[in-house]
Amino acid sequence: MPATAPDVFLTPKALLDHWQGHRRLTRRTIEAFPDEQFNSFAIGGMRPFGTMAVELLRMAAPTVNGVLTGDWAEGASADPKPKADVLRLWDESTKQMNDLWPKIPVARFHEKLNAFGQYEDVAYRLIMYVIDNEVHHRAQGYVYLRALGIEPPHFWERD
Amino acid sequence: MPATAPDVFLTPKALLDHWQGHRRLTRRTIEAFPDEQFNSFAIGGMRPFGTMAVELLRMAAPTVNGVLTGDWAEGASADPKPKADVLRLWDESTKQMNDLWPKIPVARFHEKLNAFGQYEDVAYRLIMYVIDNEVHHRAQGYVYLRALGIEPPHFWERD
Repeated sequence: MPATAPDVFLTPKALLDHWQGHRRLTRRTIEAFPDEQFNSFAIGGMRPFGTMAVELLRMAAPTVNGVLTGDWAEGASADPKPKADVLRLWDESTKQMNDLWPKIPVARFHEKLNAFGQYEDVAYRLIMYVIDNEVHHRAQGYVYLRALGIEPPHFWERD
Repeated sequence: MPATAPDVFLTPKALLDHWQGHRRLTRRTIEAFPDEQFNSFAIGGMRPFGTMAVELLRMAAPTVNGVLTGDWAEGASADPKPKADVLRLWDESTKQMNDLWPKIPVARFHEKLNAFGQYEDVAYRLIMYVIDNEVHHRAQGYVYLRALGIEPPHFWERD
């Protein structure tokens, strides 16, 4: 039997790999936006993709840090930022997440936590929500790119 | 230590609960479309949401069945369908998935499989891809709804 046999669908390591694969794709989606549309273009009264990307920055690494330390500071400000600044913060988050994740005790993922002082749930569900929220808003970025006549990155490429 | 202590981020049961929560939200997104726009409205040369919904039907229950049995038939035809038919097939898939999932041996999720004769990967990654693809296309449906002046269902509600 492999080491993961008991009742494992996903190990913590597999989840981080999965998440960082999504984050690489989201990074390419941010890169695909023209600078001048990043914080302005929108459809149907929704937010520009730049605003969504900042929300993702304020959720990903801060959630990993919160699950590990109990400190739920959101890191980056919510203000709109030029694309280059978002990409720089994105890369800093990637490194921070890779550093912090292995330090989280496995049992912690099954404890009920209060994220950012307002979302109470079991840690693994809080983390899945953060990833789902990224996939959700990135897909909206795909529609914005298509509406701008730009081909988005391939959904299935996560390297 | 809880039963899930060893190296578990997600158990198979937790993953199915997570997936069905997403599928309930996607069902509400399908319901929110006016019949006359379901198979016609699109942005930027993308597919109508009805076509995407049929793709999701052809991936979800068929993947669960494929992982369990090795039979990778796609079930429903790829033809566009009225919204009521998609919802009926959706509910049939929900029941089928709930019936088949607990029969999958846990070790199977960590075996390399060839899904639909063309996607070779470890089973848990194939399954995560199917869920991600649903979240991705549903979010595009959200943009279509907003562009039509319709408020989509709340993203965080999964009951």
